[in-house]
Amino acid sequence: MAKSENETPAPIRPVPRLPKGFRDIGAAEIREQQAMLTKIRGVYERYGFEPLETPAIEYTDALGKFLPDQDRPNEGVFSFQDEDEQWLSLRYDLTAPLARFVAENFDKLPKPFRRYATGSVFRNEKPGPGRFRQFTQFDADTVGAESIAADAEMCMLAADTLEALGIPRGDYVIKVNNRKVLDGIMEEVGLVGPEFATRRLTVLRALDKLDKFSEQEVLLLLTVGRKDASGDFTPGALLDVDAAERILSTVKNTQQYFVPSDDMNRAKQLDKAIEGNATYNTGFEELTQIHSMVRAAGYGVDRIRIDPSVIRGLEYYTGPVFEAELTFEVKNEDGQTVRFGSVGGGGRYDDLVARFTGQKVPATGFSIGVSRLQAALASLGKKSSDTLGPVVVLVMDKGEVAAYQKLTQTLRAAGIRAEMYLGSAGMKAQMKYADKRGSPLVVIQGSDERAKGEVTLKDLIEGAKAAAAIKDNKEWKEARPAQLAIPETDLVAKVREILARHET
Amino acid sequence: MAKSENETPAPIRPVPRLPKGFRDIGAAEIREQQAMLTKIRGVYERYGFEPLETPAIEYTDALGKFLPDQDRPNEGVFSFQDEDEQWLSLRYDLTAPLARFVAENFDKLPKPFRRYATGSVFRNEKPGPGRFRQFTQFDADTVGAESIAADAEMCMLAADTLEALGIPRGDYVIKVNNRKVLDGIMEEVGLVGPEFATRRLTVLRALDKLDKFSEQEVLLLLTVGRKDASGDFTPGALLDVDAAERILSTVKNTQQYFVPSDDMNRAKQLDKAIEGNATYNTGFEELTQIHSMVRAAGYGVDRIRIDPSVIRGLEYYTGPVFEAELTFEVKNEDGQTVRFGSVGGGGRYDDLVARFTGQKVPATGFSIGVSRLQAALASLGKKSSDTLGPVVVLVMDKGEVAAYQKLTQTLRAAGIRAEMYLGSAGMKAQMKYADKRGSPLVVIQGSDERAKGEVTLKDLIEGAKAAAAIKDNKEWKEARPAQLAIPETDLVAKVREILARHET
Repeated sequence: MAKSENETPAPIRPVPRLPKGFRDIGAAEIREQQAMLTKIRGVYERYGFEPLETPAIEYTDALGKFLPDQDRPNEGVFSFQDEDEQWLSLRYDLTAPLARFVAENFDKLPKPFRRYATGSVFRNEKPGPGRFRQFTQFDADTVGAESIAADAEMCMLAADTLEALGIPRGDYVIKVNNRKVLDGIMEEVGLVGPEFATRRLTVLRALDKLDKFSEQEVLLLLTVGRKDASGDFTPGALLDVDAAERILSTVKNTQQYFVPSDDMNRAKQLDKAIEGNATYNTGFEELTQIHSMVRAAGYGVDRIRIDPSVIRGLEYYTGPVFEAELTFEVKNEDGQTVRFGSVGGGGRYDDLVARFTGQKVPATGFSIGVSRLQAALASLGKKSSDTLGPVVVLVMDKGEVAAYQKLTQTLRAAGIRAEMYLGSAGMKAQMKYADKRGSPLVVIQGSDERAKGEVTLKDLIEGAKAAAAIKDNKEWKEARPAQLAIPETDLVAKVREILARHET
Repeated sequence: MAKSENETPAPIRPVPRLPKGFRDIGAAEIREQQAMLTKIRGVYERYGFEPLETPAIEYTDALGKFLPDQDRPNEGVFSFQDEDEQWLSLRYDLTAPLARFVAENFDKLPKPFRRYATGSVFRNEKPGPGRFRQFTQFDADTVGAESIAADAEMCMLAADTLEALGIPRGDYVIKVNNRKVLDGIMEEVGLVGPEFATRRLTVLRALDKLDKFSEQEVLLLLTVGRKDASGDFTPGALLDVDAAERILSTVKNTQQYFVPSDDMNRAKQLDKAIEGNATYNTGFEELTQIHSMVRAAGYGVDRIRIDPSVIRGLEYYTGPVFEAELTFEVKNEDGQTVRFGSVGGGGRYDDLVARFTGQKVPATGFSIGVSRLQAALASLGKKSSDTLGPVVVLVMDKGEVAAYQKLTQTLRAAGIRAEMYLGSAGMKAQMKYADKRGSPLVVIQGSDERAKGEVTLKDLIEGAKAAAAIKDNKEWKEARPAQLAIPETDLVAKVREILARHET
């Protein structure tokens, strides 16, 4: 149509879109997630943790800044000012709010305080494939427990959780390290003090690659740097080769020590290499304790393994750190076969509450990345069965909507998932709608049927099978009719019968 | 201790606190809420709605501004800029994001599109008692259905949900009105056009008070204004008395029309009073349809009631509006006896999707205020039974932590909620801890018992009863000992036995 000249200008309409890094989640994924969260909650409860919910918004200073690898100090967190000009932030994890909660309520809480929490966290980071700015975590933490048994327990909790979700033993491993071990190793090569903070970080990042790269490549990352296949250059930690090799061998020896073996000479070698370093020795002793506790409780090296190459990003860890890794292989975005990798982790953070109170409150925790774990379960084919769509009551006669509504309510009152078609389209489109909803069956009542006190049930699942089979076997359709007329009084019983056939 | 002079200055520590209007939610309330959400979800699913989750953050322009009664245009919403300087906001309800989702995915969706959603919403408003800046809603919406049957269904959904939560029939009512009815009534007294927008709002607010104030007081609010007992003055809508009385009588007549009665003269009177007003007539006709549909489906006037005094705040409603009201009485903060009031509501909003697409997409929905409803259930005494705390395994000998850990894991592997005491305190403090956690029993193993392969179970619930009874009846304690030594191999069986005693 030609526009008339004195037409009012078209209103400016917003474009319906989401900011980058945010996403909508549909019914199937939500149902899977619900089932997952219920299972995780079951394990956390069994371990004696109690639920706690803190709000999404906190004072910025209360959260602190502990995000990994933020080049700019204000990055990583969504922040805004309150009416009184104080800065607020969206929580970026569930641990910082826990520290605030414990500091605020210390006297009232049982000590140790064991809580679990799940909810959305927000990162104001550059989104990427599978990397979102809002995602769900599921954490368990024990606050006020100095005992390394609390850390050992986190590792067992992690293993039990993955198995409860159906991940077979052998397809996952909980890797355990201790920050003090790495700190001691770095002390030994002179990387001590604030002036070496950046180089220590580069060393840690290099060691983190030990499960992906060859030793030779990690050595490059510890020294002069490494160029990858695409020509991209990663700067190195600029250690001399002796120091780099010493770091690598200590990491490897420490790892080997905890692998069951008759060759106890290794252990002696290890002790000599790092002898007298108090930081290392404390960390090593803590790893030994975790090792013996989990073994005593029946968790073998196939489930929980000491691995000094585990880094974990967050700056607040002070002792043991854990990583829950899925070891089976999947294709990555570039089509390469890779191990699925980390789906959660945690560690000990003895200083987080002290930020507020000045008083040290030892704490340790474990956190699951829910979406990532859900992706893992999907790639393992661990899906709960599809939910059937609702029974759809078709509207054959618009003057009789109240009658159709009543049929629908009768089904619902009997606990059957049902709806009346609420659009304005005809019979054919209504059938299409029922298909799109995944309805197992539709209820049809024309005026003739109403006069007779009857309804017709059309079994859409049988119907689809019959339609597919009809070329080969016409009789099949006749023998198992997908459509039947029944007295209205039998509605609930007959619908239940059909649903029972399809729900198994 | 005296401070030494060359001490470094104390670090500035953040105060652990939450911004006003935000709160932490403890274990008991979370468990109640979980149970509630499960029941609500059950009803919404039964009605054929599918879950959908949208993120907490949206583009500000996509959400639009539909908050009620905001004096300043930028108020009510938490907003901040993204890195590319576009404005983002936290969602203030679940309806505006649904409109964005539908506009964005229109072609892919089944029509009508029926979804439910639950999650936190955020209001940057002045918090008050029971008024928070983050709270949970639970919504069901049907998008793409012009049929008034969709609205009737929302009312039945609301009634069924409240009953599923255990609110007895008679203690709630779903009130139904239609914006067109009120618009028509206001047209009749000349309140038409943008210049009367503020006065129309004042009229609506006055009518909203009909369930709290006397008619005479509402009449004051419609005319010259009203001074309350404390001397506070509420300005009136400045109508002349005739107009005000006409509004009041039409509202009351409309209401009476739908109350079952033999006196049909009322209906005739009503028709005459407002004859020829198309807006009113359309609204009245829609109310009539809802009325007959819900009655046909068996919902009486005790559950769903037409009530033209219902207003609902949000500006985006275009037709039927609903209010789920709890009618039982509670004490308010001032100690006065009041009806509990609204726990949810909704209505038809035919223009929300058109904001994006220019194409009208009729829609209607119902939203529950979860915390408010939870408070209502609490005041009705509808609490699910208390959860028992975990079994606590005491640590009698710190050198044997691995053995205690193993006992704990044995219990957990059998599905029993259990934990080892992880603090550093002695026996007495450990017992206190178990009490504070609500533990039903503790597991004790000293070195003597370990040597004999035994453990001692101490039943804390029996123990407490015995301690209370001991003055009167010393033998009682002997007959039902709260403490028993058992072989370690019987641990799981005996613990189960004790738990079964307390879980009923």
